[in-house]
Amino acid sequence: MAKQITSRAENYSQWYNDLVVKAGLAENSAVRGCMVIKPYGYAIWEKMQRQLDKMFKDTGHENAYFPLFIPKSFLSREAEHVEGFAKECAVVTHHRLMTNPNGPGVVVDPEARLEEELVVRPTSETIIWNTYKNWISSYRDLPILVNQWANVVRWEMRTRLFLRTAEFLWQEGHTAHATKEEAIAEAEKMIGVYADFARNYMALPVIVGHKTESERFAGALDTLCIEAMMQDGRALQAGTSHFLGQNFAKAFDVKYQSKDGALEYVWATSWGVSTRLMGALIMAHGDDNGLVLPPNLAPIQIVMVPIFSNQEKLPMVLEKMKEIKASLEKLGVSVKIDDRDNVRSGFKFAEWELKGVPVRLAIGARDLENNTVEVARRDTLTKEVVSADGIVDKLVKLLDEIEKNIYNKALSFRDSHLIKVDTWDDFKAKIEEGGFLLCHWDGTAETEAKIQEETKATIRCIPIDSCVCQEEGKCVYSGRPSSRRVVFARAY
Amino acid sequence: MAKQITSRAENYSQWYNDLVVKAGLAENSAVRGCMVIKPYGYAIWEKMQRQLDKMFKDTGHENAYFPLFIPKSFLSREAEHVEGFAKECAVVTHHRLMTNPNGPGVVVDPEARLEEELVVRPTSETIIWNTYKNWISSYRDLPILVNQWANVVRWEMRTRLFLRTAEFLWQEGHTAHATKEEAIAEAEKMIGVYADFARNYMALPVIVGHKTESERFAGALDTLCIEAMMQDGRALQAGTSHFLGQNFAKAFDVKYQSKDGALEYVWATSWGVSTRLMGALIMAHGDDNGLVLPPNLAPIQIVMVPIFSNQEKLPMVLEKMKEIKASLEKLGVSVKIDDRDNVRSGFKFAEWELKGVPVRLAIGARDLENNTVEVARRDTLTKEVVSADGIVDKLVKLLDEIEKNIYNKALSFRDSHLIKVDTWDDFKAKIEEGGFLLCHWDGTAETEAKIQEETKATIRCIPIDSCVCQEEGKCVYSGRPSSRRVVFARAY
Repeated sequence: MAKQITSRAENYSQWYNDLVVKAGLAENSAVRGCMVIKPYGYAIWEKMQRQLDKMFKDTGHENAYFPLFIPKSFLSREAEHVEGFAKECAVVTHHRLMTNPNGPGVVVDPEARLEEELVVRPTSETIIWNTYKNWISSYRDLPILVNQWANVVRWEMRTRLFLRTAEFLWQEGHTAHATKEEAIAEAEKMIGVYADFARNYMALPVIVGHKTESERFAGALDTLCIEAMMQDGRALQAGTSHFLGQNFAKAFDVKYQSKDGALEYVWATSWGVSTRLMGALIMAHGDDNGLVLPPNLAPIQIVMVPIFSNQEKLPMVLEKMKEIKASLEKLGVSVKIDDRDNVRSGFKFAEWELKGVPVRLAIGARDLENNTVEVARRDTLTKEVVSADGIVDKLVKLLDEIEKNIYNKALSFRDSHLIKVDTWDDFKAKIEEGGFLLCHWDGTAETEAKIQEETKATIRCIPIDSCVCQEEGKCVYSGRPSSRRVVFARAY
Repeated sequence: MAKQITSRAENYSQWYNDLVVKAGLAENSAVRGCMVIKPYGYAIWEKMQRQLDKMFKDTGHENAYFPLFIPKSFLSREAEHVEGFAKECAVVTHHRLMTNPNGPGVVVDPEARLEEELVVRPTSETIIWNTYKNWISSYRDLPILVNQWANVVRWEMRTRLFLRTAEFLWQEGHTAHATKEEAIAEAEKMIGVYADFARNYMALPVIVGHKTESERFAGALDTLCIEAMMQDGRALQAGTSHFLGQNFAKAFDVKYQSKDGALEYVWATSWGVSTRLMGALIMAHGDDNGLVLPPNLAPIQIVMVPIFSNQEKLPMVLEKMKEIKASLEKLGVSVKIDDRDNVRSGFKFAEWELKGVPVRLAIGARDLENNTVEVARRDTLTKEVVSADGIVDKLVKLLDEIEKNIYNKALSFRDSHLIKVDTWDDFKAKIEEGGFLLCHWDGTAETEAKIQEETKATIRCIPIDSCVCQEEGKCVYSGRPSSRRVVFARAY
């Protein structure tokens, strides 16, 4: 088979790039840093979107849409926000092209310069809070629980498909509340939704925690995150939820009249996940044969390959497959019959392995005689011949089992690379091996920066859901007292 | 009620603007020409998207995503295409802002000028065909049937919410085929999908036809369209499907090897509908009380308002409502119980009328005693008290009846404003009254331009599905012979 990919052991980074391209998920475009998401990759993203969108609606949120462009002056309104995003903005300066007077093609029309430059949104807090100003006057207008599915642009210098691209797709929730407590509860609720999604749909055992001050979103008072471990032991931040305090309400003068008539600034949150999740999904579960998709997000959950040794029997084999397919589809299982006649079964097997389809069914003439089917699992790469009786039920159960197995495999990998480290020498040695180091930290940005400088490791989060961290100790770097452990790792 | 809107008779254009804003569908943003689509408006758009997406998939299409930015030089590759779009492009020239050295805020960093300017996509033929070049080498790679849901930007000077905005949301299908016949069939199939959607979901009786050469999409050999009639007799182009020939394949050098080994250029189509459909929906069916939504696209299909004359009985009324709601939701009907206690029933009635909810149910204490409910129809503004027995079935049937009635009302309006005109004097008089004029035309761009100059009417289409047009005659303007009638109208 031509679609050989580099092995993880040989070069993990190259393995990832090969996989994304060869499995038909995405590719680089002619525009620096912008990717093309190919149909198979987009189908996975759509399944993510559908599920997340349902979870947002189930928690009371509505979708809306705000402009792609942000007036340059809006960005400056919140000091930390502009600091965080100004250096990576795509800036629209003109609104017209004209025929090149000095040669072929078109040039920017110098007469069509915008009065104020527009920034392609890197995130939408500013344009949204400028809008909320007109939506909010009384406590009766609150809360506003709005989400947007959109594209955003951050001009990254070093890009990688899905993980870091100049343009990416995401959702951004932007909520407005009457009280601080309610906003904090919302930010916590939404990181919970993300963790639930990561665990139960992506089969990713994430750690939920707070970012340190230096790792916070530009403009937030608190950033919550979910951190996943990749197979090289590195961390990948898979989603964030921010408590923004009253920063944006103050920047855009958004006040509400409370029940007792007082004028108060509104409290805010924002939260988002992006096509970066695709990178997490690929890197967490893939193997040297290709993608391994959790059934809950697989565009094709079961693929059926007829075995062509006996051409005469082929129509009967296909008949049998269609029958099973129809029953499975009634139960909401997505099935594909690969009846191509120009490639061999072995080629098909390898291709669907590469594409990570959870279950492969093969049926040949002998299976018809014996009333059997061959069932192959993508997660374990095992196969067995089973009776065709009750096959639909068996397959449905198997999908469930595979989803759990992929999660458990990732969980045991994660847990075996979650290491308590108490000395600086040990830290320097262990960080080279990869994994999450649970260490004491003295709580200062200075120590955090020093550790990063010396080891490239950052504090991924201060976990909120891991009791193993709740113990006193001494900072692994400075030796100063610490009330709890935090998670250090090198990260994507 | 405060949300008074201008009547259609008084000022149709103002009526539309009032309605869009006061029904909470959309509003202008701080960015010139860009709108904010508010949650209620977006919910309608989502229903459109869901249904269209299903229809695209049912006809074999897959979704993908291509970059927001298009290198300036790509646009120039197809001569007519650049001519059509160069004058209304948002152009990105820089990728960084910096602190203003001479004052507050940020300025564009002159050091961060892009080597080649990027255009925010006004449509994606060029970037997509540049991509297809790498996807296509053999006839086995064809057809490619891809759709993209995306935002696009066309720098319009005069904008109107939904109808014409600088940024809008749309889908654009881009297909690649081995033969001319197959590409033409695809373009026809997709205009058929749009017509089906318009008729059966939007309750819009559209006319399907070909554009004249001067009204074609920039770069197309043929443009098919669906044209809807608004209540002022003007036309609104609601969707287009283009046969692009080999123009983009030639511009981007996309060839395939045919079965017999020859190298051939690939044939193309593209097709799209946008948030403009929202404008059509509003303008076609709304009345002086507000929106009138066809049940198939209404985010809330039935609203229930408890009548508060008897506070004691309120819990029982709500109980009854919840029971009906649960039964309706099982059948896929979306229901809202408006149990707000800070506004009167009359206010609620007016608000849900404004928002176009197809059916309103009111239940009071007396209804409980009599086992009745009051059912009000938004389309006819009639109400009646009916027995609560079998109410769920009655409501489901009623929704269906309303969908049909809204369509039929629009159809009879359209048909009564579809007029055969055979003299130039008659043309000039009738065009002032509004409506679609079925006229003979000599087939020249010159006559077409003259008629537009004198009357502001354009040829909306050369219908493909209306036998009334298939007759010989003389051009209404030049008197030269004509083989068929075409549709003239003033248009949005």
